[in-house]
Amino acid sequence: MNGPFLAGDAGALTALMLEMGRKARAAARVLALASPAQKTAALNAAAAALRKAAPAILAANATDLAQARAGGMAAAFIDRLTLSEARIDAIADSVAMIAGLADPVGAVTAEWTQPNGLRIQRVRTPLGVVGVIFESRPNVTADAGALCLKAGNAVILRTGSDALASSMAIHAAMVEGLTEAGLPDAAVQLVPTKDRAAVGAMLGGLDGAIDVIVPRGGKSLVARVQTEARVPVFAHLDGNNHVYVHAQADLGMAEKVLVNAKMRRTGICGAAETLLVDRGIAETALPVLIPALLNAGCAVRGDAMVQAVDGRVTPAGEDDWGTEYLDAIIAAKVVDGLDAAIAHIERWGSHHTDAIITADATAAERFLAEVDSAIVIHNASTQFADGGEFGFGAEIGIATGRMHARGPVGVEQLTSFKYLLHGQGTVRA
Amino acid sequence: MNGPFLAGDAGALTALMLEMGRKARAAARVLALASPAQKTAALNAAAAALRKAAPAILAANATDLAQARAGGMAAAFIDRLTLSEARIDAIADSVAMIAGLADPVGAVTAEWTQPNGLRIQRVRTPLGVVGVIFESRPNVTADAGALCLKAGNAVILRTGSDALASSMAIHAAMVEGLTEAGLPDAAVQLVPTKDRAAVGAMLGGLDGAIDVIVPRGGKSLVARVQTEARVPVFAHLDGNNHVYVHAQADLGMAEKVLVNAKMRRTGICGAAETLLVDRGIAETALPVLIPALLNAGCAVRGDAMVQAVDGRVTPAGEDDWGTEYLDAIIAAKVVDGLDAAIAHIERWGSHHTDAIITADATAAERFLAEVDSAIVIHNASTQFADGGEFGFGAEIGIATGRMHARGPVGVEQLTSFKYLLHGQGTVRA
Repeated sequence: MNGPFLAGDAGALTALMLEMGRKARAAARVLALASPAQKTAALNAAAAALRKAAPAILAANATDLAQARAGGMAAAFIDRLTLSEARIDAIADSVAMIAGLADPVGAVTAEWTQPNGLRIQRVRTPLGVVGVIFESRPNVTADAGALCLKAGNAVILRTGSDALASSMAIHAAMVEGLTEAGLPDAAVQLVPTKDRAAVGAMLGGLDGAIDVIVPRGGKSLVARVQTEARVPVFAHLDGNNHVYVHAQADLGMAEKVLVNAKMRRTGICGAAETLLVDRGIAETALPVLIPALLNAGCAVRGDAMVQAVDGRVTPAGEDDWGTEYLDAIIAAKVVDGLDAAIAHIERWGSHHTDAIITADATAAERFLAEVDSAIVIHNASTQFADGGEFGFGAEIGIATGRMHARGPVGVEQLTSFKYLLHGQGTVRA
Repeated sequence: MNGPFLAGDAGALTALMLEMGRKARAAARVLALASPAQKTAALNAAAAALRKAAPAILAANATDLAQARAGGMAAAFIDRLTLSEARIDAIADSVAMIAGLADPVGAVTAEWTQPNGLRIQRVRTPLGVVGVIFESRPNVTADAGALCLKAGNAVILRTGSDALASSMAIHAAMVEGLTEAGLPDAAVQLVPTKDRAAVGAMLGGLDGAIDVIVPRGGKSLVARVQTEARVPVFAHLDGNNHVYVHAQADLGMAEKVLVNAKMRRTGICGAAETLLVDRGIAETALPVLIPALLNAGCAVRGDAMVQAVDGRVTPAGEDDWGTEYLDAIIAAKVVDGLDAAIAHIERWGSHHTDAIITADATAAERFLAEVDSAIVIHNASTQFADGGEFGFGAEIGIATGRMHARGPVGVEQLTSFKYLLHGQGTVRA
């Protein structure tokens, strides 16, 4: 399936993409003025439409699955692509949950009065048009679309081509919700073609129509987007996260937090990837922490001191310090105190999420101040790096850049702001 | 003067610029951890050094002025380039004032506790490295350098080549302040060459070393930066600002605010450029407002109704609605109510600053909500579009983009943020 034009017709693709951009921009203008009730109604209607459309979505998904199987895709890939009644229900639940979040648009985030009587307010506004580029996970169609809509943004979605039929069926239900609530179709658009040139067009910004790009997927997708995008990107490339067990750590707490940070789920971006143990506690800590990891099913790659603790530890090479395993593997080493730990994280980390375990408040304060990561944690698991765990309700991803959004990107982070000035005929001297 | 290498040697320039980028990145790391007192001390020392260096700065300025005069530069250009004891004092005053601003870094901007006991804080951090590209106004060297430093950012300054000697002399005083306070020289760097290729190198981001570019200057500079920059830009291209006199306006207030908005200073980006008068009040308002503008020395270009009011009004052409005059000229027209006023502003405006004059609270509310500009004003002058007037102390410019900074960009807008999580051995379920 290649959508409404011939595959490989570059002129037609360009025209299609630019037209999507223009429609998104026009829809964004309508959405920016839509009432909270209207957006909530659209999302609730979309959730209902998704449940109702389950048979059609499953049929479309069967097409995608057949092609993916014929193409010899791996089992994990097939699993991510596969929908079921239960998964469609979960997708609809998620859209309904987003419908229920507080509407960020119009919220007053600061307010003060100048000596001349001028009252100044800073209020949230939508960002405009968001481009979301994702891999073959059909649920992202609904999740990302709903989050952008809640923040008053129009969105252009580009799915991995293996999920196009599934995504189109899900998208149709989203559009049904929009229509029912009187919002424009083009508030949530899906690129209706497998032509890979569509991604390049989006990264170019569609002639100024896209304000920000959010990639959702593996490292190669994110790397391409970060390298090629001509518009801002909310993303993280790596979550190479550290747990530093300080000399003043409570060992029981360190063990519990470390095992959770590494093993609760190994495939999420908040999972710990490197353990740093302070030399001041290494002799007592390593014999507790390393077997705890190993016994939980985690492979440990360590420096000489770590290897000496347990025969199951394999040697860590230079590469290990920079690797995001996303698997039951951890790199572990002994460091010479707080400064060395911070320096290691600065050298090898990815500015995502890093934690210190310590009972020493001063050491914790320095770690929190000096580690330059989006999320810095004292005495808790790195797996809290998640918009839901922050109380944001949902997230479109986690950003490690320093511009606009950093950390979990929820509906508030998908907004901009403007200033409102209230005078009484006030003029400037 | 072409600095420490041969002009036109592209390889040497590239090497110089990349080295500046690396030094800036390293300095940014030190600055991010500098105490508020240390930054304040550096800026106060820089202010003192500027005053002490006045003779050297004036001598350097004389060189620039002689070259500019020999090059036949216009009088206004020469005026902006010219320094005097008094102007150097004003530059030093401005640096001292920035020294006294509240330090934004480390400020907690949000704080809450999750049901699991996890306490979450959002705290301000520096942005990193700022590139400032400006025209031949020597004072920007000190102002922009000081603002970036206060926010904990390293800065790379690129002056208009006609002001290079003056800027280098001012920069030397800034560096003296840094050294005195024990901060790295490279916290504030000035591109030491007139080679225009340096601008292109900065727009490319210096291999990831520059986080954001701020252009300070005329439209052609800003346009080039916005088009070519591969990094985020804080800027506005135009300040095509509107004053809309609504049908329910108090005419005395409208006259006072309008004349201030247009004529207080015509050359600033917050000056009004277009007057929209509601048809519902046009017959009584135009005979008051138009002569008031004309008598204040403002040329008026109007539609047929406006022309009919006073023989001095000339016809407005289509181009006038989109023009930022930055001069004693205004375009004026009658519009059919609030929706038409908002539509005109959406069609022709530049999303900078727009005002409504009305006694009708509902109309004001709609205008404030629906006009998509960085600053939207009710019953006050557009000339309040200024960081100082917002209480920000100082600004590096005004941004009309929707990403990160919007409106006046002061020290707070030159920061990013991170999240600090405080647990008690808290793990994720």
